[in-house]
Amino acid sequence: MSKVKAFAAQEVGALLKPFEIERRAVHENDVLIDIEYCGVCHSDLHFVRNDWGMSEYPLVPGHEIIGRVVQVGEKVKDFKVGEKVGVGCMVDSCRECSSCEEGLEQYCERGSTFTYNGPDKYLGGMTFGGYSQKIVVDKDFVLHVPEHLDSKAAAPLLCAGITTYSPLRYWNVKKGDKVGVIGLGGLGHMGVKFASAMGAEVVMITSSPSKTKDAEDLGADHVLISTDEGQMASHANTFDFLMNTIPVGHDVNPYVSLLKRDATMVIVGAVEPVDPVHCGQLIFQRKSIAGSLIGGIKETQEMLDFCGEHNIVCDVEIIDMQDINTAYERMLKSDVKYRFVIDTKSLEREN
Amino acid sequence: MSKVKAFAAQEVGALLKPFEIERRAVHENDVLIDIEYCGVCHSDLHFVRNDWGMSEYPLVPGHEIIGRVVQVGEKVKDFKVGEKVGVGCMVDSCRECSSCEEGLEQYCERGSTFTYNGPDKYLGGMTFGGYSQKIVVDKDFVLHVPEHLDSKAAAPLLCAGITTYSPLRYWNVKKGDKVGVIGLGGLGHMGVKFASAMGAEVVMITSSPSKTKDAEDLGADHVLISTDEGQMASHANTFDFLMNTIPVGHDVNPYVSLLKRDATMVIVGAVEPVDPVHCGQLIFQRKSIAGSLIGGIKETQEMLDFCGEHNIVCDVEIIDMQDINTAYERMLKSDVKYRFVIDTKSLEREN
Repeated sequence: MSKVKAFAAQEVGALLKPFEIERRAVHENDVLIDIEYCGVCHSDLHFVRNDWGMSEYPLVPGHEIIGRVVQVGEKVKDFKVGEKVGVGCMVDSCRECSSCEEGLEQYCERGSTFTYNGPDKYLGGMTFGGYSQKIVVDKDFVLHVPEHLDSKAAAPLLCAGITTYSPLRYWNVKKGDKVGVIGLGGLGHMGVKFASAMGAEVVMITSSPSKTKDAEDLGADHVLISTDEGQMASHANTFDFLMNTIPVGHDVNPYVSLLKRDATMVIVGAVEPVDPVHCGQLIFQRKSIAGSLIGGIKETQEMLDFCGEHNIVCDVEIIDMQDINTAYERMLKSDVKYRFVIDTKSLEREN
Repeated sequence: MSKVKAFAAQEVGALLKPFEIERRAVHENDVLIDIEYCGVCHSDLHFVRNDWGMSEYPLVPGHEIIGRVVQVGEKVKDFKVGEKVGVGCMVDSCRECSSCEEGLEQYCERGSTFTYNGPDKYLGGMTFGGYSQKIVVDKDFVLHVPEHLDSKAAAPLLCAGITTYSPLRYWNVKKGDKVGVIGLGGLGHMGVKFASAMGAEVVMITSSPSKTKDAEDLGADHVLISTDEGQMASHANTFDFLMNTIPVGHDVNPYVSLLKRDATMVIVGAVEPVDPVHCGQLIFQRKSIAGSLIGGIKETQEMLDFCGEHNIVCDVEIIDMQDINTAYERMLKSDVKYRFVIDTKSLEREN
């Protein structure tokens, strides 16, 4: 075991402060990673504030981790010291259930082990995330990150990236499909990049006309202003797929009206209840509303390889660890393009 | 043109009374049908009461029609005088849009012509349904009904039957799948029969313990009482498919919790909004909520042939046309097993 510097919330809603954590010794299947960058996900803030009623404190957030391998266990053949690697939302799962056998560890029937605030199988207590200097992770949950991708901009691929990539693949989005991405934030901006790289006709659907140019710069072919009833009506029943990244409860019915017959809107943002759904809309064109959670390890690697091939990274703003509380406040106001990423070298500072 | 006896509502919510309607002359592609039986669908009552805000009066309901061919147009080769035939919810569609080209006339992009209360392309005004002695229908919207099926019990196959058959096929229900049918009424009882005939393990999900024996008699392997939290918890995440036939808005969340990962609940009953949906449930196991509307003409014929092969008909209670208003009252109290069917010979009576 070794002690490393981290930032933690000590109780519900508390500001994050310096905190020393223990990392386990490197077992035979483990990889010790020197964390270089960690993305700041909306769910970090939900956990800090216990919005979902499952937080345990002290809580060290962070599940968009990029770093370098500094040590490997004796059975680890696939990772070399010095290699650039990533860790996402999970560090383990049961590995036996049908979901795990199908490579869908995120849907592990016994519950996958989340990178933070999950029961720690080695040390007891809860796992601590990437707002720290080092992490030890089983090799089966470590990802190879293409060397030529900018590390700091690649960090959010581990959550925001796979969350948007996976449903595009699962619902078989293909060249020429008309795909709508609802909401332009950390998830939405990656949804636009991926759907565009897959050859889809991409429409950014946003309530903010001021985001038009940004959306186009990201690769959107059109921008649809959701508060403009005329524009919405002109796109009714025309979308092959919708990805809804709005992070809070809202009225989904105007978006459902945009779907073609037999098409699906997948919700990846709002864990909360959404407003009453008008079933007539679903029935009269056999439409679907679905959910999707990150992606499995195999698919996360596929996504990173896809990013390597297409030179896709996230648009990020780098902060020091000490700026995290301010960053949360700005995030709540959507004042970030489009993801904060912590430079964890800042943890070496004394204050 | 010829005049025939019918029953109509003359204004919103009025009792149905005798009314004489005109049927068009038999054109070259038409089939003139002597109506023998017409099922009473919940939507008949919704239209009589203008619950969906689109009723025009006088209104002659009825879209579960069984009868005999009495005359055919010169281009009609596929139907013979004397043959037993059926007419369901549609009598025409645009025949040009992608939905029509795929045999999905119910999702016609220009709107299919409903059997009643739809714009009549021949006579102007609105179409009149099966609560009448005769009907003239284009051959492409007439169905062959297997001779050995009991005509009166086959009538509701044209709506309740295809409404439940189509989603079981679309979502590929197969032998061994665990299928839940929610609600035991006109739709639900057919859902149980079809899912059972397809080899599924069928669970009737109902709030009424008193319906247990009836559900088992229909072919349900188990009965799950939806108000029993313990029973519901023991079936959590175990269903491959759910068909929700509850005819009004309700809380769908307890049912969503029953679905396996990647499984779908299809709503075929409630056109109204359902309570706020907890997206967490959809996200954490990639579940879907969808809708489905009757079926296309080709699939309706397939369903009737399937019924012929498996000897499937509906459980019905026969009434005279003059009893329709009382039947509506009983239907509102779910006091019917499971579908009223009008013996249209009763229209010959003077009172």
